[in-house]
Amino acid sequence: MAKEFLGWVVELELEPPSLQNNTADADRLKKALSGKIGASHITIDLVVLKDLSTRLKEWGYRCRCVFFKNYGNWQLIDIIACDDPEPIAAIAVDLGTTRVVMDLIDLHTGKRVLQSAFDNPQFEIGPDILERIHFADKPGGLDRLNALIISAINDEIRRMCEETGIRKNRVYLMAVAGNTTMSHLFLGISPHGIIREPYIPPTNTPGAIKADALGIMINDKGSVFVFPNVGSYFGGDLIAGALHAGFHQSEAVSLLVDVGTNAEVLLGNRDWLVACAGAAGPALEGGVSEIGMTAGPGVIDTVTIDPDTRAFRIGTIEDKPPKGICGSGMIDLAAALFLSGMMDIRGRLVPDACGDRYRVIDGVATLVLVERDVSDTGEALTISQVDLNSLIRSKAAMYTILETIMEYVGIGFADIETFYVAGTFGSFIKPRSAITIGMIPDLPEKTYSSLGNSSLKGAARLLVERDAMDQVDAIRDRITYIELNVNQDFMNRFSAAKFLPHTDAARFPSVPLISTQSL
Amino acid sequence: MAKEFLGWVVELELEPPSLQNNTADADRLKKALSGKIGASHITIDLVVLKDLSTRLKEWGYRCRCVFFKNYGNWQLIDIIACDDPEPIAAIAVDLGTTRVVMDLIDLHTGKRVLQSAFDNPQFEIGPDILERIHFADKPGGLDRLNALIISAINDEIRRMCEETGIRKNRVYLMAVAGNTTMSHLFLGISPHGIIREPYIPPTNTPGAIKADALGIMINDKGSVFVFPNVGSYFGGDLIAGALHAGFHQSEAVSLLVDVGTNAEVLLGNRDWLVACAGAAGPALEGGVSEIGMTAGPGVIDTVTIDPDTRAFRIGTIEDKPPKGICGSGMIDLAAALFLSGMMDIRGRLVPDACGDRYRVIDGVATLVLVERDVSDTGEALTISQVDLNSLIRSKAAMYTILETIMEYVGIGFADIETFYVAGTFGSFIKPRSAITIGMIPDLPEKTYSSLGNSSLKGAARLLVERDAMDQVDAIRDRITYIELNVNQDFMNRFSAAKFLPHTDAARFPSVPLISTQSL
Repeated sequence: MAKEFLGWVVELELEPPSLQNNTADADRLKKALSGKIGASHITIDLVVLKDLSTRLKEWGYRCRCVFFKNYGNWQLIDIIACDDPEPIAAIAVDLGTTRVVMDLIDLHTGKRVLQSAFDNPQFEIGPDILERIHFADKPGGLDRLNALIISAINDEIRRMCEETGIRKNRVYLMAVAGNTTMSHLFLGISPHGIIREPYIPPTNTPGAIKADALGIMINDKGSVFVFPNVGSYFGGDLIAGALHAGFHQSEAVSLLVDVGTNAEVLLGNRDWLVACAGAAGPALEGGVSEIGMTAGPGVIDTVTIDPDTRAFRIGTIEDKPPKGICGSGMIDLAAALFLSGMMDIRGRLVPDACGDRYRVIDGVATLVLVERDVSDTGEALTISQVDLNSLIRSKAAMYTILETIMEYVGIGFADIETFYVAGTFGSFIKPRSAITIGMIPDLPEKTYSSLGNSSLKGAARLLVERDAMDQVDAIRDRITYIELNVNQDFMNRFSAAKFLPHTDAARFPSVPLISTQSL
Repeated sequence: MAKEFLGWVVELELEPPSLQNNTADADRLKKALSGKIGASHITIDLVVLKDLSTRLKEWGYRCRCVFFKNYGNWQLIDIIACDDPEPIAAIAVDLGTTRVVMDLIDLHTGKRVLQSAFDNPQFEIGPDILERIHFADKPGGLDRLNALIISAINDEIRRMCEETGIRKNRVYLMAVAGNTTMSHLFLGISPHGIIREPYIPPTNTPGAIKADALGIMINDKGSVFVFPNVGSYFGGDLIAGALHAGFHQSEAVSLLVDVGTNAEVLLGNRDWLVACAGAAGPALEGGVSEIGMTAGPGVIDTVTIDPDTRAFRIGTIEDKPPKGICGSGMIDLAAALFLSGMMDIRGRLVPDACGDRYRVIDGVATLVLVERDVSDTGEALTISQVDLNSLIRSKAAMYTILETIMEYVGIGFADIETFYVAGTFGSFIKPRSAITIGMIPDLPEKTYSSLGNSSLKGAARLLVERDAMDQVDAIRDRITYIELNVNQDFMNRFSAAKFLPHTDAARFPSVPLISTQSL
């Protein structure tokens, strides 16, 4: 007998039909399943009803049920013989704007069987959300974008199934976590309103949708849950992240930050949640400077500068020859420049301190990070004052957003027990460096926790814990989304945060006061 | 503005989107609709979601919503502009084994626009349920039976739409009430188990199913509710009848009888319901005697015999020349024969009293009802002792079933406030005659009420009163179905009931004691 798991598959043994118990087969099954999972009413699709009696009889009135829940509505997806040795599977999807990551999960063990990822093919239409939304407005544009992502996911499903030997017919459930625009494009619903005042998405709660209505090639009877959004700028990926972080279970106050072009912030505990999102600038995604890039082999992610000799030690991912720098590398660099006195508290390069590395190129102060002879590109890797200014604006925006949400709630940073950082950025960022430049508050380093791909993990959790479905709603419904009013108060805070680490250095007691004089 | 009606269409005016109210369009709509109809959660199909934002905006955030409920699950079926002048319609279906009757209903007025009927095309496979169930077991048999009824209904929908000028795209809802086997054949689910011990149907509660999954050609988004069954021998047609009769609203105890090959009986009030079904014999459907037929023009439905002269007065439907006799005509005839002394209390023809009308044909005592020169067929219309015996058995079975269910509940016939008789049979039966032969209890005639096509009326009620949906479940769930054990007690009662009106004449005080001597 398969192991029982509080997921979406249960094994049932029905009372066989008799003259004393002449309830219809489907109703007997519904009653038994309801009792086992605590459902009030369960619907069964016609296609399952059609051969239900025959199968139950053949299997001696024992079966495994694959079910799902769409808000209040429990659905029996299929029944399977107890002695059927094939795995029953599900797929969690992190539907990123740039990259899509998928976990194939065995619903019996609740474990991941395979992880796989691919670049979002909508990139060819436009690398960012904004371009895709505009493209979706053109004739055929929405269908094109939708077809690109659906067929890419289907291709990946096929590959994953081939690799694991699990037939796609045995994949019954899918959970998709993406930002609001990506969720709409996946559903084939126009995202037009998302970027236009008053910024209203067509739907926040698409729920569970039949796979075949979406064109998703899993079992025909399969169901695809799309994580709900809070609004145009706070999507299902964040809700999934909050689920993974366990906001709904913790009495202690936590803060979750997902940093990209937008910084999305969620603050609260199991009783209350406040969210906001604001433009943090592309600098943190490695998107501004000429050598900025997303994390990958050969990308600089660590920079340290010897305080005495000002010698640089540059680390790259997989120790490959350097070819660019990612967001967390930039933060590391900025922190190191600041601590070594090569950058002042306004974020300006200090020529004397920078010494040989300082150049003026096309009239812009520039720092040579890697000389051409050791770079992978054959060109020197340089960071200009413009790049640094952009980074400073981003870090100031991030800190201001955090300050604003704390003030809105009326608590201090010290009240935060865990500060989660989500996403790829979160996996690479060094809290010490981010604190040094005043991007995040000066909390003990153990307060900071990297969540990794929290939207994927949240999606996977929904597929293995059925209680998570209610938690998703509970999290969503509990969130108060606050609009960041870019008013005078905000601008004042932002201006103060543009210094390193802050005009009010007392806020960052762990950051040493640095003289900007040359050594 | 269209008239508000507590049905499945409501008009909504949404708060327009704004920076202050930035809920997604679908969620704003769901919330407004939930508030208006008292739903906890409403699901919206992907196909409706796709253009929901565009349409709402175009219509100034006012719309009419067509919705439906599938057990606990409310579904928004479609949205329609408030100024759209086309009717919004639904179709109620009485899915009879022999004949299918459909009402096209305007969901705004709640009124029937057109009624139409056709012979069930499955008749060509087999006139009765039993033959069809056997046919469904053959390869392709079920699909054939299903296709016959679905395409016949689709043809009728097309005709009804053409005649009324209502486009079928404007028909959003359908409610289908049929016996358990017909419901399964309509759904395309094998009725195999219905006639095989332990007589378990595949499903009792199919609920609301998408029209396109059934192949029903109404609006693609449309939904088809199939009335639930209590069991193999107590189907959705009876539940619909109980809904129409208002069992769920009445404190007084009522009894509902639907007479056909089976007699189905429902007893109770808004608090409790007991049902049973038993073979009453085909005599009451006009199915046994050579001249027996279902009600129609030229069919004898009234027989009176002058007590002095023993002259017959025979009435036919539409006063056409007589060609046969229906079930209620047979009951009338039997009562008249009994009251005139031409048939004794054992149901035997009394040769002396019958006089010229008495013949012995092939060794069987026979009564000439209509001489050949006045019959429509050119042949004499005769009733044999065999026919009469069959009728007596049927009436005895009916009375015994009634007696049994009353005894089960522990009340007497006098406690019944209304005795509903359903179906075509119910429309023609004369309670006085049925009492005279002891088929139904000797209650005041005003107790008896003909329901007409109660399953059609119940189906129509569900389409115009949304509360009826819950009532259907409440009725079904409240019914205690009792198996008629054909034990010694039952047989003793049955034997006693085979006399006219009964061995215990005191039970029928209104029936005169008749001498069987010739006049």
